[in-house]
This record gives sequence, C-alpha cells and structure tokens, in this order.
Amino acid sequence: MLLYKIAEKVYELENQGRNVVKMNVGELDFDTPKNIVEAGIKALQDGRTRYGSAAGELSLREKIAKMHGVESSNVAITVGSKWGIYSLINILCRKKRVLGLSPGWPTFESMSKHFDAQFEWLSLKMENQWKPDVDEFSNVVKGKSLVILNNPSNPTSQVWDDDVEEKLVEIAQKAKVPMLLDTAYRDLCFEKKQEVQWKDGMIICGSFSKSLAMTGWRVGYIVADKEIIGRYVKINQMSITCVPKFIQLAALVGLDNKDNIADKFRNECKKRADAAIKVFSDAGIDCVAPGAGFYVFPKLPCKDAFDSCMKLLNKHAIAIVPGSVFGAYKEHVRISLCYSPKIIEESIEKLRDVVKKC
Amino acid sequence: MLLYKIAEKVYELENQGRNVVKMNVGELDFDTPKNIVEAGIKALQDGRTRYGSAAGELSLREKIAKMHGVESSNVAITVGSKWGIYSLINILCRKKRVLGLSPGWPTFESMSKHFDAQFEWLSLKMENQWKPDVDEFSNVVKGKSLVILNNPSNPTSQVWDDDVEEKLVEIAQKAKVPMLLDTAYRDLCFEKKQEVQWKDGMIICGSFSKSLAMTGWRVGYIVADKEIIGRYVKINQMSITCVPKFIQLAALVGLDNKDNIADKFRNECKKRADAAIKVFSDAGIDCVAPGAGFYVFPKLPCKDAFDSCMKLLNKHAIAIVPGSVFGAYKEHVRISLCYSPKIIEESIEKLRDVVKKC
Repeated sequence: MLLYKIAEKVYELENQGRNVVKMNVGELDFDTPKNIVEAGIKALQDGRTRYGSAAGELSLREKIAKMHGVESSNVAITVGSKWGIYSLINILCRKKRVLGLSPGWPTFESMSKHFDAQFEWLSLKMENQWKPDVDEFSNVVKGKSLVILNNPSNPTSQVWDDDVEEKLVEIAQKAKVPMLLDTAYRDLCFEKKQEVQWKDGMIICGSFSKSLAMTGWRVGYIVADKEIIGRYVKINQMSITCVPKFIQLAALVGLDNKDNIADKFRNECKKRADAAIKVFSDAGIDCVAPGAGFYVFPKLPCKDAFDSCMKLLNKHAIAIVPGSVFGAYKEHVRISLCYSPKIIEESIEKLRDVVKKC
Repeated sequence: MLLYKIAEKVYELENQGRNVVKMNVGELDFDTPKNIVEAGIKALQDGRTRYGSAAGELSLREKIAKMHGVESSNVAITVGSKWGIYSLINILCRKKRVLGLSPGWPTFESMSKHFDAQFEWLSLKMENQWKPDVDEFSNVVKGKSLVILNNPSNPTSQVWDDDVEEKLVEIAQKAKVPMLLDTAYRDLCFEKKQEVQWKDGMIICGSFSKSLAMTGWRVGYIVADKEIIGRYVKINQMSITCVPKFIQLAALVGLDNKDNIADKFRNECKKRADAAIKVFSDAGIDCVAPGAGFYVFPKLPCKDAFDSCMKLLNKHAIAIVPGSVFGAYKEHVRISLCYSPKIIEESIEKLRDVVKKC
C-alpha cells in the first residue's frame, strides 16, 4: 500500500544517510516524556522482563477501566491500537462487511481485505467541513458487521460534536452493528474532551502513541464487552503472547500524567495548525482548519497530487502523502505537522513551489 | 486451549497473592543478562522510541543474516518467534494443510485452525526415543503447504542428528513443501550446535526468548526467501507496525554475546535435566533423557495425568502441563525445569506423591 511504500522509501533514504523531513508519518517530533521513559527503565532494572498475561497487566487494565467506566475484564492491552483494530476485524468481520468514513485511514480497508471482508466507505465532503450526514449514515450501516469511526479523523483532523458521535453510536446500536471508536487523536482535540464512556455495542480502541508520544513503544488498548475481550485474548495467546510488561508499566505512568502531557502537546499542535492554515490561506490553497491533532488535508490546485508528492520527496527530501491514499481525493495531500512551525512553513512553501508546475 | 488456560489460572492465583512454582511455562528462571538490559536502557535514554521499519532494524537484520548465510533482505524481525510462525501460517496456509510432529506444541495446530488450515500430526513414539522415521515422513509430506519442524522438540527436548534434519529438509524440498524450522531451543542443545545455514525452501524461525532469557521482551526473527519476507512485512505494516527499536537494539547486544550467555544457560539446563532424570529413575517413572533445553516429558503411571496436574496446582501450587496438550499422550506430563535442581527435586517428589493416588 502506498502509505507504507512511502514510509519504507523514507527509511531507505535515511539508511543512505539523507535527512528526511518526515511529514508522511503520524508521529509527532516530541520525545516520549521523561517520567514515562524512566518508568520503563525502572521496570527493566526491576527485572519485569518475563512473560505476562495475554490480556495485559492488571494495574494498567484497572486504570483504563476506570477512565471508560467499565470493569478491568472489559479491557485488554494491545500492540498499539493498530493491533487491536486488526485483531477485532479478524474476530468479527471475516467474509463480512465493514463500514468506514472517507477520507479515512486506508489500513482499515487493507486489514478488512486481508480477512476477506468487504470494506465500504461512506464519503464525506470538504464543502460540509468533512462532517458526516446522520441520515446517510443510517442508510448504509445496515448489514455491516462493524462500523469504524475515527474521531478526530485521520486525515482531516476534524472533530465531530459529541451529539453527532452519540447519534451515530445510537444508530449502530439500533442496527445491532458493533461500533469501533478509534480514539487515537482524541486527547489532542484543541478543545479538551472528557473520556468516552463505554456503552453496549461499542468498542473503544485507545492509543498511547499520539497523546503520550509513545509511537515506537507499541502499546494501546481495547475496551469491549467481555466476550469480545475473551476472543481477543485467545488471539494474543497464539500470536504475540503479551505486550512487554516494562512497556505496560511505562504506559501506566503515562496515563497517570496524561493530563499534563496531553495539554502541552495539544497547545503545540494548535500553534502548528494555525501556522499551516495561515500559509495555505496566503497561498490560496483550500484547507479546512483542523480541530485536533497534527494532520492537514489541503486541496492542491493539481488534478493529481501524486507527482507533486514524489517531486517533494526526491528533490527536497520532504515526505508527505497523496490524498488518493485516503479515498477518492486525488487533489488533496495529507501533511503531518510534526515539526516546528518554522519547518512547517518552509516545507509548505516548498510544496507550493512544486505545485506551481503541476 | 488448555496450555493457556493453565497459564491464565496461574496469573489469577498470583494476583491473589499465591506463590506458584510455574513449571508450566517455557520460561527459565534466569534474568535477562545485564548487558542486554543495559543496552535496552541505553536505547531508551537515547530516545530510540519512534516508529521503525516494519521489517526490523537493519543492524539486527544484518547480524542475523550473517549467522544464517543470507542477505539482510532475507531477514525480518518478529514479536517473538511465535508471531513469525503465526504470520507465516497466515501467509502460506489458509485453507490448506500443515504438517507437524507429535508430541508437539499445540499452538501450531491452533494457529492453523485459526486460519482455516487443516493440521496433521505425524506421531512419534517414546520407544523410538521420540525420533522421526524418515520414510514415514516422506509418505505424509506430500500435499502439504507447510511442514513445521521443532528441533529440539517441545515437549520432549529431543534433538535430532544433523543428518536426520538434513534428510527431512531434502524430502520437503523435493516435494516442494516449504519447511519451517522452529529453532527456539537450538542454542540450548547440551552438545553445542552450529547455526543453521539457510537453504531454498526453508524458513528459519529464530527466538531470543530461551537462549538469551528474553521471553517477555517479545522479539524473534524469520529467515526466508525474499518474496515471503515481503509478504510478512506487509502484515506487520497493517498489524503491529514494528518491534520497538529499543528492544531490537537490546537483542542485538544479546546476539553479540550469545556464545557466553547460551553456554552458561546450556550448562545449567544440563544439570537440571540430570537432577530430574535421577528422581524419575529412582521413582521408576519412564522418561527419555533430554538432549537440550528445559522440558521433560515423563510417562506417569496414570491413565490420564490431567487430574494429577490439577491436584498438584491446587494443593501444592505447582503448575505443570498434562501430556494431552501435546497430542495423544494422556499418561505424560510436561515439566519445565525452570528452577534450581533443589526445587525441581522437591516438586517432582510432590508430583510422585500425588501420582500415588491416581
């Protein structure tokens, strides 16, 4: 898939010694906060290096359970939220039908295809600020085995109002279709949100990667009904065994300090979004201002932004992702604002130059 | 599956504050060696906490490639060797047929069923010292999509001579059936072995867990032809993303020091095996002496050893695994000799008492 081809291409360039501006990756430039790293180091020093429960460490599961209003037996730890989603599609969707909203993360579709499921996208429109239409959603949800809602959205960084999300959850509940809420970017909403409270029929896929700068640690979680958790744990037993305990103990310290950490990240993300939107506006490039996180999804004045992306990578060593990766959005690109406002401004200027010849 | 039910039962007892002798788990009581832990800590301090390549860190892949006589593009890093095997069955065996040797690790069968493959066991006999019959193997290999050879074997800890293994590889090669060599226990052969040199049609699944006491770190590798590696990497991209870099860098230091570390472990394992075999012999319990690692697979004087295992767990807080887990071997048990000779002797004495009433 193009998204990962670009990522591997970047690693190749780096292995050749090139310094690449990686605005293709969903990874902020913040280091993992010190107290999290120190907790990981302490756990290593304490010898927490043995096999652990396939469901995850009880202390971490209890903490997460409290956040989402459930019992610890409704919680299991994952190898990043991606592994949770991959496993849930494996459990729930083989040879069935899955629904997502587009523009959306293409990996949802790859995972589904991988398990012989049919993936359908409900297309959103830039003219509607990328917001879903509740009636349209209601029409397409029937007959699906899973709906995936990614709110805030990757790649648009739009945040739906709580009442919209609630309405969608309600519709899925009535149609008896489990609803997976991918909340990876929720802690980075520019207007801080409360934790999602779990309801019947809902599956929460939580991440530590973005809000705690723990991307490379590979740890996340799912909250679901106990039967689903039980099936998920069985998959872990025969595949990954467990997430390393020392990683889980570091994540626990991260959760204890999440408010402080995420506040800081949120503020920085907002600054960067403002900087990017200003350059786009000056350049006459259309882009809906983000409500969270660090992606922007502008529409370039090109029929197909793919060539511009490749030129930007080869000529300027700046990696961004063509919009076609996220659905029928060829004219768009996704840019990760994972650098300082200065580098963001410079990079978008270079994109602007490249685009002039598109 | 019973193997994991017992493991989870043990975690439950431990969470209740009981001190369980965990002779059910394939995990030695050795701490991860200091220089490996320190390498992990250093990598954390150096900020090696970002996303990495789905194939694994180049430095580690190069080191492994050299060991097995291949290029780095023939190597990919896994979340423990289990994840490698799970993914390879996913890639190669859906709705097809897989062959393994029994008594054998039941997870091979669970993984296969999970991917709608049919698993067949070729039964070995204690009377033949658990050795495979080459002609018998030749008859059953045809029509399979994968053969899994686990040498040294879990649960018998028998080691086949190099010429037997070579002969089996040759037979599979002629039948054009890929052969997966699960070498998890190879570095713990009581007579030290050279590294397996990769051949066409062979897939090596390597582990750091047993020989470097890195069980809970979840890192291993596969060596295979490039097409298979490419397919494996694509699965990583949509599932686990990567193995944490700081874990891979710790594993690299482990490999640099493998000779010293594994020598020490090997010698200790031999002492323990000798101690266990002596108690069995004194008690008139049949057990083929192991040639590697830390499992013994004695035949108890019971029609079904299951009840004895449960009594031993509930009464004495000693966990072992009934032989039925590994095939049609109800009278056997698998005991992990993952404690000092003294505890091994005491535990087997308690098993002997329990067995008297079976």
